[in-house]
Amino acid sequence: MAAVLCISSNPNPLANKMPRSNPSRPSRTTMAIMSQDQPYWTSVHAEIEVHLKQQILVRPPLSVFEPMHHFVFSAPPSPAPALCLAACELVGGHRDQAIAAAAALHLMHAAAVMHEQLPSTDRPKTKPKPGPMAYSPGIELLTGDGIFAFGYELLAKSMDPAQNNSDRVLRVIVEMTRAMGSQGMVDGQYHEILMLCKQSRYYNYVCEKKEGGFHACGAACGAILGGASEEEIERLRRYGLCVGVMRAFSNRVEEGNEMETKEVVKELGSLALKELEFFHEGKAEAISSFLHVLGL
Amino acid sequence: MAAVLCISSNPNPLANKMPRSNPSRPSRTTMAIMSQDQPYWTSVHAEIEVHLKQQILVRPPLSVFEPMHHFVFSAPPSPAPALCLAACELVGGHRDQAIAAAAALHLMHAAAVMHEQLPSTDRPKTKPKPGPMAYSPGIELLTGDGIFAFGYELLAKSMDPAQNNSDRVLRVIVEMTRAMGSQGMVDGQYHEILMLCKQSRYYNYVCEKKEGGFHACGAACGAILGGASEEEIERLRRYGLCVGVMRAFSNRVEEGNEMETKEVVKELGSLALKELEFFHEGKAEAISSFLHVLGL
Repeated sequence: MAAVLCISSNPNPLANKMPRSNPSRPSRTTMAIMSQDQPYWTSVHAEIEVHLKQQILVRPPLSVFEPMHHFVFSAPPSPAPALCLAACELVGGHRDQAIAAAAALHLMHAAAVMHEQLPSTDRPKTKPKPGPMAYSPGIELLTGDGIFAFGYELLAKSMDPAQNNSDRVLRVIVEMTRAMGSQGMVDGQYHEILMLCKQSRYYNYVCEKKEGGFHACGAACGAILGGASEEEIERLRRYGLCVGVMRAFSNRVEEGNEMETKEVVKELGSLALKELEFFHEGKAEAISSFLHVLGL
Repeated sequence: MAAVLCISSNPNPLANKMPRSNPSRPSRTTMAIMSQDQPYWTSVHAEIEVHLKQQILVRPPLSVFEPMHHFVFSAPPSPAPALCLAACELVGGHRDQAIAAAAALHLMHAAAVMHEQLPSTDRPKTKPKPGPMAYSPGIELLTGDGIFAFGYELLAKSMDPAQNNSDRVLRVIVEMTRAMGSQGMVDGQYHEILMLCKQSRYYNYVCEKKEGGFHACGAACGAILGGASEEEIERLRRYGLCVGVMRAFSNRVEEGNEMETKEVVKELGSLALKELEFFHEGKAEAISSFLHVLGL
């Protein structure tokens, strides 16, 4: 199972170990689960939302900001931004140091989802659109491009001479471009299209590149901004990778494969917790509760 | 005419002054013109191309790097990256300080062109595709996303402790996100779609937001990385804006409006040269030759 912890160039590291899946099954709204059960995650999530609402207002020109606002706040929730803040706190940082990165992660996620849902002649099908607020594909394409750019702007603007954090911010930008780019999210999305077209069975690869890589990036970015050591960063990156892949597996499991999937998710959970043993038990409590909150 | 120098929220600052245009007419290959006539611009352009070729290799996974390589090197040339290096040199910097930004500008331009050319149900028509190397729309969409991300990665990685340039690089990232984002390129592309659908006549606004804003960004980024003062940065930004709008007008002029367009382009050329009077005449010679090279 350790193979899952290495985002490798081998497109199918878990080929013989993992259950078949149904990638079109919709995700559970993880953030909603969080909000009900855990005050820590509720407060982290609320803080990210407040920051986003301060940054993205509905203002003129409405042709630009209305769709942007709509897509940012209607995106399906991702726990990766919350993981970013939790990782920052775990290594002794303050939430403020990572709030821009957490908001940027949400923006990247929202834009990636938008572009995934665009109708295209060479895709088998697209997910159903939300009703009356839907925009035309041209607007969705451009708004996605605009949201990506704004995510990087938020990050770059979080440079603060008082914190002397320029080098950390630049490192986080590189982390995020790699997680979102041609060897990260885009690669996962490409293989997901192949999968939907029945041209590929690289299911585990897609999970690693998409949810896995994105959560790994969230945790690593939080750690970097909180001033972590290299070992702390890498352990939190692997923790995020486990959590992301677990979440992907749990959300996409096909009927009939529940038991098999449960086994693998449990194994990944153990590996995730093993990474946290490096940290002080009391401090790691909040971030480790992530697994329970997700119901994993 | 001075209104053209202010990228304003008024969508039509030149409404009564500018000739009508045909936005679907293809651009001239400006870089080819440069290469024939001017050793300075030839060398600048060659340096950017060498840098891009070092960064973007055709390597595994080929599904990722083959289309990326194809689209980066088949994009119609833009003079904005060359303007970036020239601005850096004008303010006393060395080309090396701005080469990553110039390469990133080319990547942004290539990705923006790709997304513009995607077929979409709500667009009147798309430009013809290059023949045998064309990829499917899904690949083009994702490759564009990947190229945008790689552009920001190139920029962020250009941080160099020996140069102590982190703050400048972060400022350039903000410049670029704004030029490419929802109030820059994306806004121009949106209004261009409206124009093609005959729902808008904001022709000048499109030229300002697209070519104007992009060239302004190129010149400002070069100046920032070369260590310019705030006044130098703003003068070069305005110079870039004039050059970009002039180029847009020259490339899109409709038959029958040649004289009117020539007048306006001439006026913009005078305004552009006025910005350069602030600099030492000898040093500004190279960048001012840009106007002649473009045949403006």
